[in-house]
Amino acid sequence: MKKLMNDPRRYVADSLAGFAAAHRDIVRVSPEPAFVARARLTPRKVGILAIGGSGHEPLHIGFVGAGMLDAAVPGEVFTSPTPDPILSATRTVDQGAGVLYLIKNYTGDVLNGETAAELATAEGISVRTVVIDDDVAVQDSEFTAGRRGVAGTVLIEKIVGAAAERGDDLDALVHLAGELVSSVRTMGLAIAAPTAPHSGRLSFELDADEIEFGIGIHGERGRARMTMASADELADRALDAVMEDLPRRRGDRVLVLVNGMGATPPAELYIVYRRIAERLDAAGVEIARSLVGSYATSLDMAGFSVTVLTVDDRLLALWDAPVRTAALSWGC
Amino acid sequence: MKKLMNDPRRYVADSLAGFAAAHRDIVRVSPEPAFVARARLTPRKVGILAIGGSGHEPLHIGFVGAGMLDAAVPGEVFTSPTPDPILSATRTVDQGAGVLYLIKNYTGDVLNGETAAELATAEGISVRTVVIDDDVAVQDSEFTAGRRGVAGTVLIEKIVGAAAERGDDLDALVHLAGELVSSVRTMGLAIAAPTAPHSGRLSFELDADEIEFGIGIHGERGRARMTMASADELADRALDAVMEDLPRRRGDRVLVLVNGMGATPPAELYIVYRRIAERLDAAGVEIARSLVGSYATSLDMAGFSVTVLTVDDRLLALWDAPVRTAALSWGC
Repeated sequence: MKKLMNDPRRYVADSLAGFAAAHRDIVRVSPEPAFVARARLTPRKVGILAIGGSGHEPLHIGFVGAGMLDAAVPGEVFTSPTPDPILSATRTVDQGAGVLYLIKNYTGDVLNGETAAELATAEGISVRTVVIDDDVAVQDSEFTAGRRGVAGTVLIEKIVGAAAERGDDLDALVHLAGELVSSVRTMGLAIAAPTAPHSGRLSFELDADEIEFGIGIHGERGRARMTMASADELADRALDAVMEDLPRRRGDRVLVLVNGMGATPPAELYIVYRRIAERLDAAGVEIARSLVGSYATSLDMAGFSVTVLTVDDRLLALWDAPVRTAALSWGC
Repeated sequence: MKKLMNDPRRYVADSLAGFAAAHRDIVRVSPEPAFVARARLTPRKVGILAIGGSGHEPLHIGFVGAGMLDAAVPGEVFTSPTPDPILSATRTVDQGAGVLYLIKNYTGDVLNGETAAELATAEGISVRTVVIDDDVAVQDSEFTAGRRGVAGTVLIEKIVGAAAERGDDLDALVHLAGELVSSVRTMGLAIAAPTAPHSGRLSFELDADEIEFGIGIHGERGRARMTMASADELADRALDAVMEDLPRRRGDRVLVLVNGMGATPPAELYIVYRRIAERLDAAGVEIARSLVGSYATSLDMAGFSVTVLTVDDRLLALWDAPVRTAALSWGC
């Protein structure tokens, strides 16, 4: 399989250099240790920092900017960043109000994040961590104790980022992030595997009519191999898995993300969304907001995930708040 | 190859239904005859209407909204819409100031657009057409007399849309669009073919180390089959082809689009952009603005194109003007 790259060892470095050149109005990129931070930080604001390996773009670097993240620490492809770049990014974004780490639940990310948090704390920076585990597919996985963190992270980064922008303090943001983690669920599937830059090979094999249901965003095994079905049937299965698990204490308004895994055309994501909207409407659940696109990807994997977050007016106001990043931009 | 769909005959219809449900704040979708128009039209504004087959999303439906298109008429996958939906869309968007059709140069699109324009004119609607032919790859192709229209269309739709929004009249918009067509050039390549919904098969075959240089956005043959090379070498070849052909009368400021063909990860597009920026910088050409992402796609084809548009302050102000569509959104 071919990859558009110069050298697999320079995949992330070259990409970050291009990202820096394309978005110099929004971000600054530190090449070594590698992290992405806002070009302009806001004095006395809590810093929101995301941790996690590369290969999931636009997650997280595409969400650095006003109204969302202050920094993202990417690591190599599908590889946790070490504590060193996390600590450097923490020092850069700390404006005296502390820093909140948003971490998808993968063992390496959590351990390295916690180590960096301890080191930063020893330097007098207030750091708190929130671990995101929205994936309902499996209870434990190859790379996690407990559930994995997947596309729900996009929604949490937006909403927590907006709350930090309006001036919420670190305690309030930890509380909000925790509330969001408990209110969001995701289920995904793959119809074709991604090609890893280092091996140049597909990261797993699927038969011509086979899919992986409950896939992780690194191509980890999910719940089951299944036979390929229609988009409506696949959407139903994913939505059922999400809704069975979703706490509904806040009533019947939700924010829905239909997320592409990388290689799936927008037209097909909208085919899936059509069914999700039809099903939720029939169930009396109001989709207050939606997002359809490839936001938390796995290189060029084909497939989709469905994320549902229960919302109220307070969360919707934060969702609607202005944002200006490479990958999400709206408002003033 | 698997596709996320219910029935190939419903591929576009299901997708448009999902698009309508996801973006009801921005668009209204007419299912039959099929077209997408703004939810709220602006009285006395010239209507900007784009014509062209589906499978290139977000082009064009994702660009309908304030500051860009008033309507898009999609057709089936890689198939021109017939005059009937074009005429219906024309009637819908005409606000008494006339309608401008932006048409990528493909024989079917041009013929059907011209037929619809004649019918609309007979009904008393002022219609003008501008044909976009930015692709430097080939002089004629399977589906065109003359050069093809490809990703440069995104830039033209944005800039002409902004000019219409500020109140330019039909003559001025035709003049502006013509000026843009003469100032923009694109070169693309594919490293993997797309899968067509109807056949379920790859639309062409490439050997393991082979690429198609100068590909069209329907997988039409380009200039040459080549051996796969590094991202920098491929970027150089594409950029050289563009710059050799680009009129430079306006000096040395450009807008650059590095466009993904569908399945190429953002990380790899930024690897390409890194080289483009380096090369233009070394040549003393200032990149005044840039856009990196999958905006004019060919289903799940892998590859990229490079588009360069020469710009001045007047065009940059139109580029920067607010836009609110499903796929491009910035400003207030």
